[in-house]
Amino acid sequence: MTSDIPFREYPAKQHASNVAKYLKDKYLTEKYGNEPHPAVVIYLEAQKTRMIEDSDEAMLFRQRRPFFYLTGCLLPDAAVVYNSAQDELTLFIPPIDEESVIWSGLPLSPEEAAKTYNVDRVLFTTDVNATLASIAATHNGKTAAFSIAGRFSEGVSFDGFAETNISALNAAIENTRVVKTSHEIALLRKANEISTKAHLAAIEAAKTATNERQIEAAIIGACIANGCREQSYHPIVAGGEGGATLHYVGNDVDLVDPKTKQRKDSVLIDAGGEYQTYCADITRVIPLSGKFSDETRAIYELVLEMQTKCINELKEGVRWDDVHALAHRIAIEGLLKLGILRGSPDELFEKRVSVAFFPHGLGHYLGMDTHDTGGNPNYEDEDRMFRYLRVRGTLPAGSVVTVEPGIYFCPFIINPVLKDPKTSHYIDSQVLDKYWRVGGVRIEDNIHIRETGYENLTTAPKLIAEIESLAS
Amino acid sequence: MTSDIPFREYPAKQHASNVAKYLKDKYLTEKYGNEPHPAVVIYLEAQKTRMIEDSDEAMLFRQRRPFFYLTGCLLPDAAVVYNSAQDELTLFIPPIDEESVIWSGLPLSPEEAAKTYNVDRVLFTTDVNATLASIAATHNGKTAAFSIAGRFSEGVSFDGFAETNISALNAAIENTRVVKTSHEIALLRKANEISTKAHLAAIEAAKTATNERQIEAAIIGACIANGCREQSYHPIVAGGEGGATLHYVGNDVDLVDPKTKQRKDSVLIDAGGEYQTYCADITRVIPLSGKFSDETRAIYELVLEMQTKCINELKEGVRWDDVHALAHRIAIEGLLKLGILRGSPDELFEKRVSVAFFPHGLGHYLGMDTHDTGGNPNYEDEDRMFRYLRVRGTLPAGSVVTVEPGIYFCPFIINPVLKDPKTSHYIDSQVLDKYWRVGGVRIEDNIHIRETGYENLTTAPKLIAEIESLAS
Repeated sequence: MTSDIPFREYPAKQHASNVAKYLKDKYLTEKYGNEPHPAVVIYLEAQKTRMIEDSDEAMLFRQRRPFFYLTGCLLPDAAVVYNSAQDELTLFIPPIDEESVIWSGLPLSPEEAAKTYNVDRVLFTTDVNATLASIAATHNGKTAAFSIAGRFSEGVSFDGFAETNISALNAAIENTRVVKTSHEIALLRKANEISTKAHLAAIEAAKTATNERQIEAAIIGACIANGCREQSYHPIVAGGEGGATLHYVGNDVDLVDPKTKQRKDSVLIDAGGEYQTYCADITRVIPLSGKFSDETRAIYELVLEMQTKCINELKEGVRWDDVHALAHRIAIEGLLKLGILRGSPDELFEKRVSVAFFPHGLGHYLGMDTHDTGGNPNYEDEDRMFRYLRVRGTLPAGSVVTVEPGIYFCPFIINPVLKDPKTSHYIDSQVLDKYWRVGGVRIEDNIHIRETGYENLTTAPKLIAEIESLAS
Repeated sequence: MTSDIPFREYPAKQHASNVAKYLKDKYLTEKYGNEPHPAVVIYLEAQKTRMIEDSDEAMLFRQRRPFFYLTGCLLPDAAVVYNSAQDELTLFIPPIDEESVIWSGLPLSPEEAAKTYNVDRVLFTTDVNATLASIAATHNGKTAAFSIAGRFSEGVSFDGFAETNISALNAAIENTRVVKTSHEIALLRKANEISTKAHLAAIEAAKTATNERQIEAAIIGACIANGCREQSYHPIVAGGEGGATLHYVGNDVDLVDPKTKQRKDSVLIDAGGEYQTYCADITRVIPLSGKFSDETRAIYELVLEMQTKCINELKEGVRWDDVHALAHRIAIEGLLKLGILRGSPDELFEKRVSVAFFPHGLGHYLGMDTHDTGGNPNYEDEDRMFRYLRVRGTLPAGSVVTVEPGIYFCPFIINPVLKDPKTSHYIDSQVLDKYWRVGGVRIEDNIHIRETGYENLTTAPKLIAEIESLAS
């Protein structure tokens, strides 16, 4: 379809050059100081074709992200060499298997591949060793080969290189990936556009759905129909109280309460499509009867306030920990106003009481992985308000983060706080009882951080008036 | 939803007992003859929760088929012990991980699992070794443990058993699986019912689709909405000439020819949903303009004749090789009538000329795997008419086979025959030229073999009049 983004526009060489620069600046400068550095050569392999256990069917193929980053190529069983001295990117594709042509048709030829991908030349994978040896022999042997441990085939030879390093490259790529090139932003925007269509289809399906699976079907169907063949992650479609389970995966519960015969109040949908390995990650909550109940509306308004105010803070250099803390401050104010919490805002913050209602982090980097690389989290943090925060420190321009505050009424998390005599007085359990039915509300957008502000890549509707109008 | 089939009706114990009987009849009788046999104990583990490479997301879970066969349980990280002496089936579920309850909610308790699954008792996996040791100590130590190599955890101990065998069980299960219990037939029927809805949705989507992916979206969406969360296999949605590629997987080509601006003639759809591990496998060809072209119609009529006549032959004891040969005989007659082939029917059959148009086997066993176990194929067969036939020999009552003849116009397969002076005279290339545009036609149903005949589990429409009426 004409709206597809061509693979040949993917800035593979720019990425390779950025990674090589990172290796030079960090690893080589540390090792060689002012002495002449060897030239950087990078070798990576694509994900292999792998069979399902006990089956003659191939597993769902998911390209290795470091490989795609340096090639923009979704082929399995391929390889890539980047030679920084020549700024030359060589893609290696698997040789043609005559037997498989009968069943699968002709694969891409090297000539076609060279036109399809943004690389300097295309050879067969049978040429890898000769290519590496020829590069190693140049520059008077002053060339360092970088690869990733466990990610190159046994037969690949790094003989002749002044140095072979299989530990520094992974971190170099992970760190380089944090700041996106403009083409990567365009891919994330495209994934978001398609996922917005999926969320609109979900609102439509929710009008008549009798089971969560019908809403999930609408999401996945709309993604595939519009060009996202795979989901970024397993979607969450959680009706009513199910929304309180953060990692809800069943997506097969009836939306009519078997006891009361009433339709559940709302459904939480966390789903996004993957476009050329780039992920959208969007959460919305939709009323099942067209209108939110008073309780769900109150929580929705609070979460939307948390999200809007946090997004408004965002620009290059903002400390993510501070934005996460701001979300908690707003949550505390709101839960006090609703009468669910009791006490002073500062005391509730210091005692981490709001963590019982907002137990996860405000968001994470987003890119080729849903939980993208480079966030430097500290899952051992003794402060439970920050333990699950997937990004720590300041945000650079060009990074993309999700902003996804939530308020949940999860008995497994709140009851221990209610039962602990040190914290029970902070919660009014009579008021709280009215809110269990809400389940959980989370609102999640994907935000591109810029020097002077931000760009919200997510256009799926989230204002109550919009959603209620679409849902009725 | 009320139409879901409860897991507790799955005949896990009957399957376990059948497998134990197979082990006694084949393996133990061979080894012990008239001496007293040890009692059979079977130990199997479920598929593990596995992470996607470089990701914190779990891989798509696919239960190990031998494990499901003996438990009817889709939980990961579980295990099962069957003790044939007591006819006792014990399911082991993973112990509760407190940390994960916060994120994922409470898992099934042993009490709930005992009500959910058709097993005698449910323990935690931490009880596996104690249970095995206690069984080994009974029957005066005359108990043989069977498991599958590489499919049990390192810590599992078979100490105390008179014998531990990790090579015989896999074949025992594979052979037992060929003859389905009535509940398995019901699951296959259910998978077919849902997949029929998917094929009807495909016909509807094909009316307006501009790209194959919109038809694939309709199929997958309809499967999920109706209870088949996963496809039995990667669907094939191949417009026009794409249908000639047997393992077409792209599903993303425009349905309007970029040169002629005309809509392609038809689309071949090979897709089926998986229901509780049981697979539907259905192929249909749909006209994209509501009516088949003359050439596609002629080929469709021939393939439907091949399929109908082959299905009519089916009952217990029929030799599958003979039915496959019959399909070729009918193909030859039809291609002669159309003028594509030249020569005598017997000569064309003996020279295997029809293999260039119908290169694959007539069908395969179907069950928990799309290509189900027990077919005894011979992929080394020098006779290329039978080399890819996935079932050889006679069909037992209770087996389920696909019947999927096809006629393809694939240049990679036909051109070598056209160019070979020994065979070129059998094909009229001028007549043939009119048919390249057809791509391929395959029609595939799932047939339950019975003592006196068969039951066609597939109800998706396949008559030309029905399809054209639905497609316009």
